[in-house]
Amino acid sequence: MKIDAVDFFYLAMPTVLDIGDGSQDALLVRVQAGEYVGWGECEASPLVSIASLVCPMSHSACKPVRDSVLGMPLNDIADIQRINQRVRHQSLDLLQTDHTLSGIDIALWDLLGKRLGVPVYELLGYQQAYPKLPYASQLFGDTPAETYQKAMTVQQAGYRAAKFGWGPYGIGSVDDDAAHVFAAREGLGPDGVLLIDAGTVWQDDVALASTRMTALKEARVTWLEEPFVSGALTAYASLAQHSSPVRLAGGEGCHNVYMAQHMIDYAQLGYIQIDTGRIGGISSAHQVAQYAHARQVTYVNHTFTSHLALSASLQPYAGIESDIICEYPVELKSLAVDMTTTHIKPDAAGYVHIPAAPGLGIDPDLHAIQPYVVDCEIRVGKQILYRTPTLA
Amino acid sequence: MKIDAVDFFYLAMPTVLDIGDGSQDALLVRVQAGEYVGWGECEASPLVSIASLVCPMSHSACKPVRDSVLGMPLNDIADIQRINQRVRHQSLDLLQTDHTLSGIDIALWDLLGKRLGVPVYELLGYQQAYPKLPYASQLFGDTPAETYQKAMTVQQAGYRAAKFGWGPYGIGSVDDDAAHVFAAREGLGPDGVLLIDAGTVWQDDVALASTRMTALKEARVTWLEEPFVSGALTAYASLAQHSSPVRLAGGEGCHNVYMAQHMIDYAQLGYIQIDTGRIGGISSAHQVAQYAHARQVTYVNHTFTSHLALSASLQPYAGIESDIICEYPVELKSLAVDMTTTHIKPDAAGYVHIPAAPGLGIDPDLHAIQPYVVDCEIRVGKQILYRTPTLA
Repeated sequence: MKIDAVDFFYLAMPTVLDIGDGSQDALLVRVQAGEYVGWGECEASPLVSIASLVCPMSHSACKPVRDSVLGMPLNDIADIQRINQRVRHQSLDLLQTDHTLSGIDIALWDLLGKRLGVPVYELLGYQQAYPKLPYASQLFGDTPAETYQKAMTVQQAGYRAAKFGWGPYGIGSVDDDAAHVFAAREGLGPDGVLLIDAGTVWQDDVALASTRMTALKEARVTWLEEPFVSGALTAYASLAQHSSPVRLAGGEGCHNVYMAQHMIDYAQLGYIQIDTGRIGGISSAHQVAQYAHARQVTYVNHTFTSHLALSASLQPYAGIESDIICEYPVELKSLAVDMTTTHIKPDAAGYVHIPAAPGLGIDPDLHAIQPYVVDCEIRVGKQILYRTPTLA
Repeated sequence: MKIDAVDFFYLAMPTVLDIGDGSQDALLVRVQAGEYVGWGECEASPLVSIASLVCPMSHSACKPVRDSVLGMPLNDIADIQRINQRVRHQSLDLLQTDHTLSGIDIALWDLLGKRLGVPVYELLGYQQAYPKLPYASQLFGDTPAETYQKAMTVQQAGYRAAKFGWGPYGIGSVDDDAAHVFAAREGLGPDGVLLIDAGTVWQDDVALASTRMTALKEARVTWLEEPFVSGALTAYASLAQHSSPVRLAGGEGCHNVYMAQHMIDYAQLGYIQIDTGRIGGISSAHQVAQYAHARQVTYVNHTFTSHLALSASLQPYAGIESDIICEYPVELKSLAVDMTTTHIKPDAAGYVHIPAAPGLGIDPDLHAIQPYVVDCEIRVGKQILYRTPTLA
């Protein structure tokens, strides 16, 4: 069986707002091999990943991603590994490559799982998928009162853990930030697991981050996420020296296994957060999960888009029982909800279960997606290199 | 003074060959502010960087690069720093951003230097630009005999240092590789500085790289470049344990200052090689040069394109006297030669001098470039987001 087609579909809300909400657009990936179809998703900026799929070659280590995928054999997981290596080798100097590869790799696992009739986590060698405890992931309110309301709402919806991030946090005064954190704790109740996401707001400024630690400790926050950008290893390690019992979380910006390993080895993280749609897909994310587990760092998914992406982000650590929490976006735009025919919903006890169906177990809703498809065309010289393909 | 326009021009040879030669296409960047014009270049894959300049916003941390540049004040070097921060903050989740920013940052320095009537290295705080000893940078021959001829040729052309890379090296047997290295040494003569570039061929496999060390030591090679990909810090550090007196060189894949710092801090490099067209431009490259100098790691430019890019790549370490060697491509395709009105040529003693003219001191040849301009168009929905602008 060979890969016959790789198609990218740019989906978007009619209006994209200037807020930290990654569910406003999506790049849906379809891979076809023989009679089988697999689906995946790339984070982020659909147009740029489309360009990297089809761009003209610059030289031998800067080729369009498609050239390393089309026509390749796809019969077992070794073939997926070979395609990963080939893409990264032949598109070494094309920076966008890792994000583009991510959606393709996810679709390859989905396709192979469907063909072999097993869920992806079984292909990865896991005997079973353990339930995960979802934390409701959402933006801070504009005011502490609004943050309190949001926390109340998710607590009443049955979530035992919640994360608040972005919005005003880290930009205003230390007191303003503290007011938001205490409001979140109050709304969530004394027993809820509270997580705070600074969204890289302090870049690599340890002093600025340090001023917020008192409130975070007092509000019994479990982790402070992304005080700094992904590469600021020494800043992370330095802040970790006096953050206890609050642990640091980060890693969503990593776009290959090495970068995640550096965060684990040098940044003193308690939690490594991997976006399967950025790091190179399920293959790379699974490697990170194994690496983290061996070093007592907890692996957590980073997901802010559809439930297709959510399933793909849970597979890499599905079988690691001790890595129990998972990110679960609760403020999805209609695009990210409508994208799939089924959804991963928390059960009565508050846990989510990874689908046991073959592949990712979550399929796109081709009819519902149609209104969100953005029609695009890229022309270079006289050649049309890309035109939105037909979805169904 | 505000930034009025940022224009990208995709240039390419009529035919792009599947070889490791980065001079086959180029992305020329023009920034205009008031009556001033600055020029820069981005590495690599012009179409993908064009897409990242103009793409629709995905969310607040994934905006088109252009949005963070147009209309911004440009009166002093603090303004350039502000634009860098703004781009990286607002396009945090857009992977291609660093390559795109590189060409823009270079053009900003060129423009500001022209406006203030000083070369860029003076704006960077250097009192003077020291001459650099260029090494002739070229691909290995297909056979050892061909490699020998190439080495003879550059030695007779007056080069005192030469680098051979890519091509067959590292793919065949240990004996084949040794034959190429000895051929290069023989052609270059006993006194020439010989450098070998493995082009990441062993990925992160220390054992494979180790088998080549005997020949490299015997041929008195000064550095082995990129035995591994940029992020493979532990592989580098491990090979360095038994590479002496051969030193390791690497870093061209770094696309921000952090990554370069990790190579310096954890990979035991003797030489850090930075491509100004990838790392974020002159601003980021200059930070790396300072960081490396303070840690006794030698900074070297990575350049494989035009002399506009060459000037931009020399500015960041122009004033560091001890960092004496520089990469100098000697097999440029006609595009990269024709691109500029003047060129940086070695003097009688074999040294190159950074232009003392304002800005980069190298201007594009707008007439000669014209035949290489690739006409492109990107349409999203009903909007034409990019159409090749008018060059002159």
